[in-house]
Amino acid sequence: MPTKAEFNINIENYLRVQRDLIDRHFKTLLDDNKYTNPKELWDPVKYSLFNGGKRVRGILCLATYESIIENKLSCEDIDYDCKTVACSIELIHAMSLIHDDLPSMDNDDFRRGKPSNHKAFGEATAILAGDAMLSLAFQLVAENTKKISKEQKNEIVKFLSRAFTLGLVPGQILDLLPIKEKNNLKTIENIATLKTAELIKASVMCGASIANKYEANNPDIKKALSHIESFGLKIGVAFQIIDDILDVTSDTKTLGKTSGKDEKQNKSTYPFVIGIESSKKMAQDLVLDAKSELKRIPIESPVLYSLADYILNRIS
Amino acid sequence: MPTKAEFNINIENYLRVQRDLIDRHFKTLLDDNKYTNPKELWDPVKYSLFNGGKRVRGILCLATYESIIENKLSCEDIDYDCKTVACSIELIHAMSLIHDDLPSMDNDDFRRGKPSNHKAFGEATAILAGDAMLSLAFQLVAENTKKISKEQKNEIVKFLSRAFTLGLVPGQILDLLPIKEKNNLKTIENIATLKTAELIKASVMCGASIANKYEANNPDIKKALSHIESFGLKIGVAFQIIDDILDVTSDTKTLGKTSGKDEKQNKSTYPFVIGIESSKKMAQDLVLDAKSELKRIPIESPVLYSLADYILNRIS
Repeated sequence: MPTKAEFNINIENYLRVQRDLIDRHFKTLLDDNKYTNPKELWDPVKYSLFNGGKRVRGILCLATYESIIENKLSCEDIDYDCKTVACSIELIHAMSLIHDDLPSMDNDDFRRGKPSNHKAFGEATAILAGDAMLSLAFQLVAENTKKISKEQKNEIVKFLSRAFTLGLVPGQILDLLPIKEKNNLKTIENIATLKTAELIKASVMCGASIANKYEANNPDIKKALSHIESFGLKIGVAFQIIDDILDVTSDTKTLGKTSGKDEKQNKSTYPFVIGIESSKKMAQDLVLDAKSELKRIPIESPVLYSLADYILNRIS
Repeated sequence: MPTKAEFNINIENYLRVQRDLIDRHFKTLLDDNKYTNPKELWDPVKYSLFNGGKRVRGILCLATYESIIENKLSCEDIDYDCKTVACSIELIHAMSLIHDDLPSMDNDDFRRGKPSNHKAFGEATAILAGDAMLSLAFQLVAENTKKISKEQKNEIVKFLSRAFTLGLVPGQILDLLPIKEKNNLKTIENIATLKTAELIKASVMCGASIANKYEANNPDIKKALSHIESFGLKIGVAFQIIDDILDVTSDTKTLGKTSGKDEKQNKSTYPFVIGIESSKKMAQDLVLDAKSELKRIPIESPVLYSLADYILNRIS
């Protein structure tokens, strides 16, 4: 039986509101001459940043922050900081997609229904735009936060850099291996954790870190953090499983990227290794597990429950 | 007439000792299972990191730190931190070379006398290895420093991210423009400043920031910092001018990378725009100017003078 927390969230509405919040904050941050010239760099960056992405990772950061921070402690400046970090997370995600789509990687001509970055601006520019976005993610944390402490900034730099250096990149590298080396559940679980779940985990941990400004040494909060971390990892793996399933079952128009690519590229995926039905079951179980992590912490987090369901039920 | 400070430095010896120091510290930092597996990522990273690079930028960071910090204030832990930051700087420089050499960029098959990263490991891996190195640079600052304050870490993240996001990448992007758009002194000065001098400036500023641990609010130190910043910018531009000259006058074996590439690739360079002799004169004047910045600060900095001369007189 669902808890009270699982009711009453109109998730589509919530996602739209939060996505707009992140997009507006992005535009505020980038509304500066230094992010306009040279246009040969910043036009491509903005092309990929504002292409209708769902902002799931940034929203998870905001939602975790909002769930933990008590209303009395919240203030405009910390909200601002959390939005900045959400933008940093989205920068890292967006740059990883630009590099993923390159001819030497997945060689995908489309992303979210538009030509991918290198198709629109050329390969050299796409590589450099991605590089700048990765560095900008850390720059925003250092420069464009108002209220969080230097200690928190440092923790956020750690979360994000580790998720990328020790998660996303190794995950991508393993994903490039010949299919015979990864055609088993253990390996694809490892790849999904690295390339997808680690950044999603970092997203919720960044939100939690910002919310804990006033309570960094509270032992209850520390315990809660480990459940939030597990929540992030579990919905992260579920996210990748659903991605794999959608690649098989959806069409290019709905996905906004070329469907059926995994099979053509000899990618090892959950449906390929254990079949579509078992993959669905596994994602459902992970989301159930993730929710049970939330039930063990003294935090009202209806949006986190709803976001976990959304990740499971999304169609693109 | 040279000052006392300009005497008595055996620069070749100094460079060798400092380079070894950085290399050993790199090996200590990377001697961890998380930087070993997957070997498909970390072998390529180490291939490019340990290829006999001169470590000029990291050494400039160390030398500035050593020049400013007083012996009584120096301690093993701050030395450690400075070496870590020197490694971060070298990671950023090394990843920029990997991406530069890619077929869609400069398409160079050799780097320091060995096959460039993508020739040895393939294009996808070279792109991802570079990405991981950029992120690792920030991770080391956040994780692998012992004594510097969170405030200093944040300042270093700022210096490095700005040098990359607003310097190196825009510089590279402008360098890709058609030659007719950049065949003038103003434009090549701008490109040299962005793509080369900003990171060299950041290198000396990082060293200064670490040395100022105990004196961040000392007004004399603040004034000195602006001269150190100018010193970094000026030797940085001189460095690029000499690079341009060596591309014309040196051979592939001495350079360790393909010589004469700039002309073939329609790059606009100092020798192309103002001739070799005027380029040499300009580099000499910049180094003189840079040294005069040092003369205006109450710091004994013989190695910084010698490093400026080395940048001017180097043959590779």
